[in-house]
Amino acid sequence: MQLITHYQNEFLAFMNKHLTEREPKNLYDPIHYILRVGGKRLRPTLTMLSADIFGADYHKALYAALAVEIFHNFSLVHDDIMDQAPLRRGQPTVHTKWNLNTGILSGDTMLILAYQYFEQYEPNIFQELAKIFSKTAIEVCEGQQYDVDFEREVQVSTDQYLKMIAYKTAVLVGAALKMGAIIAQTTQENKQKIYDFGLALGIAYQLQDDYLDTFGDDSFGKKIGGDILQNKKTLLYLKALEKGTAKQKQELYALYTNEPKNEDEKISRVTELFIATQSHTYLRERVEAYTMEAFAILDTLDIPQEKKDILKEFGSSLMNRTI
Amino acid sequence: MQLITHYQNEFLAFMNKHLTEREPKNLYDPIHYILRVGGKRLRPTLTMLSADIFGADYHKALYAALAVEIFHNFSLVHDDIMDQAPLRRGQPTVHTKWNLNTGILSGDTMLILAYQYFEQYEPNIFQELAKIFSKTAIEVCEGQQYDVDFEREVQVSTDQYLKMIAYKTAVLVGAALKMGAIIAQTTQENKQKIYDFGLALGIAYQLQDDYLDTFGDDSFGKKIGGDILQNKKTLLYLKALEKGTAKQKQELYALYTNEPKNEDEKISRVTELFIATQSHTYLRERVEAYTMEAFAILDTLDIPQEKKDILKEFGSSLMNRTI
Repeated sequence: MQLITHYQNEFLAFMNKHLTEREPKNLYDPIHYILRVGGKRLRPTLTMLSADIFGADYHKALYAALAVEIFHNFSLVHDDIMDQAPLRRGQPTVHTKWNLNTGILSGDTMLILAYQYFEQYEPNIFQELAKIFSKTAIEVCEGQQYDVDFEREVQVSTDQYLKMIAYKTAVLVGAALKMGAIIAQTTQENKQKIYDFGLALGIAYQLQDDYLDTFGDDSFGKKIGGDILQNKKTLLYLKALEKGTAKQKQELYALYTNEPKNEDEKISRVTELFIATQSHTYLRERVEAYTMEAFAILDTLDIPQEKKDILKEFGSSLMNRTI
Repeated sequence: MQLITHYQNEFLAFMNKHLTEREPKNLYDPIHYILRVGGKRLRPTLTMLSADIFGADYHKALYAALAVEIFHNFSLVHDDIMDQAPLRRGQPTVHTKWNLNTGILSGDTMLILAYQYFEQYEPNIFQELAKIFSKTAIEVCEGQQYDVDFEREVQVSTDQYLKMIAYKTAVLVGAALKMGAIIAQTTQENKQKIYDFGLALGIAYQLQDDYLDTFGDDSFGKKIGGDILQNKKTLLYLKALEKGTAKQKQELYALYTNEPKNEDEKISRVTELFIATQSHTYLRERVEAYTMEAFAILDTLDIPQEKKDILKEFGSSLMNRTI
């Protein structure tokens, strides 16, 4: 989408203008590093798009967009520490390139900087932005905690899993869109609906990611079956455990517990079990249901049809990856 | 001071009422634990005191006071990770009692919760509170970074050291007081002055702490000479290096670099050098200068004399520890 590319470029120019050298260097250099490493800049772009959709000059949304992007990167820096991840987008993570303390402290600073960017707005808008931001930030932390907890728990329900991914990733998509709506000072109803649209689309996107990890083709860009090798408790796994026969459950559980003799064999056997238990059908249906829910909300927005079409096109481009 | 004790008790009751069980437990239990471990509750008390001084009902300041206290505890949780401290106030630190990831994530959540407590105030006051809070929180992070940097640097000036302790500890004292003034909606001049009072008093307090660590008597409550044994680059050390003869500098540097044969001998020899270089006189003078500065600001506040007297009494009680 040309419009999205345009927003991305404007956002990058704006962000780079704001990443000026600052003391102490050991605190700010890692922040500038991680912000420049890349990424699709999806979230800040959504804030700009949303402001535009609801009738505001999208330039007014740039500071909020920067807050969203810096918060997202804060969560990556701290999550990478917790996951002991050496790489992020193919580059060393902050705690690897510097050290643990730098990762913690630079992350903390990014979280505070996000709030500071909202100071550019007048008090009423500032408070509205800060409120949805804090609520979202808390949920992201809670989602990360559920994720950590679930790794250790034997029994996780599909509802618990859906809540976890909603909190970990989708709420920020909803919040990014809502912030644009707040800046455009549209109706409370529109603000709530664009949030719900983002939430549903964010969940659909994340579930599709899980699906493609097992059932995607080579164009997906990651190794197919990566989640299976990591024994990740995705919805595919949880649903298979829920729906499978006693024998299927036992086999799946064993495959996820014991060290595999042959990795490819493990992937193909688990995949067969996901199909046999109809877990993969269930996941496809969930992806479609959340996508439909998102698009249904769009129709009820109180904005011109051509604006709805932009959001629809964006949503479709996001969901029409190789399935 | 009876008034301070009264505020402390009211604050504790208010805080405990707000520490209700919340999911996920692994995220919130550590937060409630560290908040309950104790401490003097000095900063929240100052926010309540300040609101009262400037003519507001101090109950109105309780949410801001809670934000200040939870932020202070956030910084302790993350600092304890960075310092690898096993104990805090005689109890296991969060990352020791739980683990590193819990320490990081619970800390992050506390920082966000602090902002959420400000939502209790109307937009104009909310923005003013959030602004001073963000500015202060950034400075606290910068101060922590300078502290980490200075440990590795050979040459640190006394000015750099003073900036570091101002950021690490004194700005939050100033901000805690200013928040009370904001809630009371006093004049901009009063808000600035009460901040400056807190900043000066905070620096005086921290410098006195450094002084007492070497020159205090047994009633100080810590082992005399602890900073020396840890080779801490306090103002005493930095000034001695600045003022000493080549021979004194060399000896001091050697004492701080080599493993001591006898700890008590090291303490007494370093103490002698602090006296011989007049570093201890310099520090005493700085403590007095900052205290005087704080009290001089008080005199210019536009409030009734009896209110000034309360702040004076508080400041004196803080500074008249055993020297």
